[in-house]
Amino acid sequence: MRFHCPTVKSISVFAPATVANVACGFDIFGFAVANPGDQITLTASDQPGVRITDIIGDEGRLPREAERNTAGIAIQTYLQHIGRTDVGVDAVLHKQMPLGSGLGSSAASAVAGVFAINEMLGRPLPTVELLPFAMEGERLACGSAHADNVAPSLLGGFVVVRSYSPLDVIRIETPAALYCTLVHPDIEVNTKDARFILKNEVSLKNTIIQMGNVAGLIAGLMKPDYGLISRSLVDVIIEPVRAILIPEFNEAKHAALDNGALGCSISGSGPSMFALSRDADTAQQVGAAMQQAFLSVGITSEAYVSEINKQGPRVVD
Amino acid sequence: MRFHCPTVKSISVFAPATVANVACGFDIFGFAVANPGDQITLTASDQPGVRITDIIGDEGRLPREAERNTAGIAIQTYLQHIGRTDVGVDAVLHKQMPLGSGLGSSAASAVAGVFAINEMLGRPLPTVELLPFAMEGERLACGSAHADNVAPSLLGGFVVVRSYSPLDVIRIETPAALYCTLVHPDIEVNTKDARFILKNEVSLKNTIIQMGNVAGLIAGLMKPDYGLISRSLVDVIIEPVRAILIPEFNEAKHAALDNGALGCSISGSGPSMFALSRDADTAQQVGAAMQQAFLSVGITSEAYVSEINKQGPRVVD
Repeated sequence: MRFHCPTVKSISVFAPATVANVACGFDIFGFAVANPGDQITLTASDQPGVRITDIIGDEGRLPREAERNTAGIAIQTYLQHIGRTDVGVDAVLHKQMPLGSGLGSSAASAVAGVFAINEMLGRPLPTVELLPFAMEGERLACGSAHADNVAPSLLGGFVVVRSYSPLDVIRIETPAALYCTLVHPDIEVNTKDARFILKNEVSLKNTIIQMGNVAGLIAGLMKPDYGLISRSLVDVIIEPVRAILIPEFNEAKHAALDNGALGCSISGSGPSMFALSRDADTAQQVGAAMQQAFLSVGITSEAYVSEINKQGPRVVD
Repeated sequence: MRFHCPTVKSISVFAPATVANVACGFDIFGFAVANPGDQITLTASDQPGVRITDIIGDEGRLPREAERNTAGIAIQTYLQHIGRTDVGVDAVLHKQMPLGSGLGSSAASAVAGVFAINEMLGRPLPTVELLPFAMEGERLACGSAHADNVAPSLLGGFVVVRSYSPLDVIRIETPAALYCTLVHPDIEVNTKDARFILKNEVSLKNTIIQMGNVAGLIAGLMKPDYGLISRSLVDVIIEPVRAILIPEFNEAKHAALDNGALGCSISGSGPSMFALSRDADTAQQVGAAMQQAFLSVGITSEAYVSEINKQGPRVVD
């Protein structure tokens, strides 16, 4: 097999933040947003291998060694897979979202990295085949190779991870008018803690309720039927347990719903929360109300409002 | 509120058999088939109230008292609801499918009854509003007012019962070329036993796998994507427990899959099994192979092959 030689000396790629779980779809649903996201710049080097030469915006918290960095490991695994360990790149990572926020920060970096190197080498693999390498970044960051952030960040849109063995990722069409509000309260929740407090058993009753909502959300998105989307954005299994890790969760959620959101829940393992709305104005208002709920107990926050990102990563100037 | 007076002296209605659960969707999925089904004939009477004057095809096993019969109770509850206890009808029920078979026999009778009386009275209620009365028939037959048989029998097509409180029933479009094979082995499984052996707890791991398949099946039907339908027709929660009640279940299932079925599982609480295929010839072949599997241990069976019934009940001559 012959691949193109690197013809691009330098490339910058943006990969989007993602909301995993999406209320009822623990470990199987995720979608990408237009904003925020992470950016990586790769520059060709004569010296084989991957080097993280700088990380901007992480306040020094992320490892600079390529094999301990999600983007670095994703690029390394990719280069090994395509048999191009002769390639050398220097990477500068621009973190443009909070770390450990439940917004898929590690996934966005890994996706940006692997998408960028694939572009740089003349696209030897189709985008969908980059997924396993981005998942290696997640394995490094979270301890297991989850796909519910990397898959939507890489493929764009709303994604179902139907199965892990074998990996089966399905893209679901979403209505044009669907806006996401993300609110990141300035508190920290450790992803591993968030997983640890979950129970290993679910009642059959709650399993049935959750399956009904999973089916309803997919049908609601595909029809589209906003009422059905709204009724289905309900999580009876994970949210009741994890909500206790987020101060003012119930108040922020009620603020979102009272201001017209279709639904509101935890983004990934939190502490960020997401809400979906039918128009940009509502989504803005929902964000302001949620921020106010946090602020009422002295917690500052960042809010982001954007459409669903149907494109995934993109090359930027 | 004024309703039309009965203008029809006699009416016959066919209501279809149904496959509940549909592999991954325990208690939430169901679809109607074109064949078999039950038929009811109502004749106007001067004497108020509902009388079951005859039942054909039940070998004397079903109660003749209206308030102990699923069709009778559905009609009675309906007449009470619309305030027409002055109406009198004599009903003849033609059971055209095996009882206690997992094919929604009690649901089909209740749906036929309530659809027929509503037609007879000039359709005072839209079809979808007949659901609660048909569910009363199910409460009588099964001990709880399940909707996963009555909803598809009444509405036709593939149905999701997203929620019971409040009742939220969603109709899902299915591809034109989707054929159902039903095989009813001549053994009996009691619905209450079939429910009793289920565990009250499900592992979170299996809940996630099942949710992935639930999402995959809805997406597969709506896209449509036959490969996705096939990969999603997997039940890791109920089938492994209930399969032990059906002798030769695994052999019959493998026979279906080996002969080209997209998937195969238990219909409702069994003992009938269903398979879905992409064309009528395959569905026929699948049925023959499944029957042969049962016959290899001396179990005779009936097989039915038909399209998905998108119409629901219909008036017949």
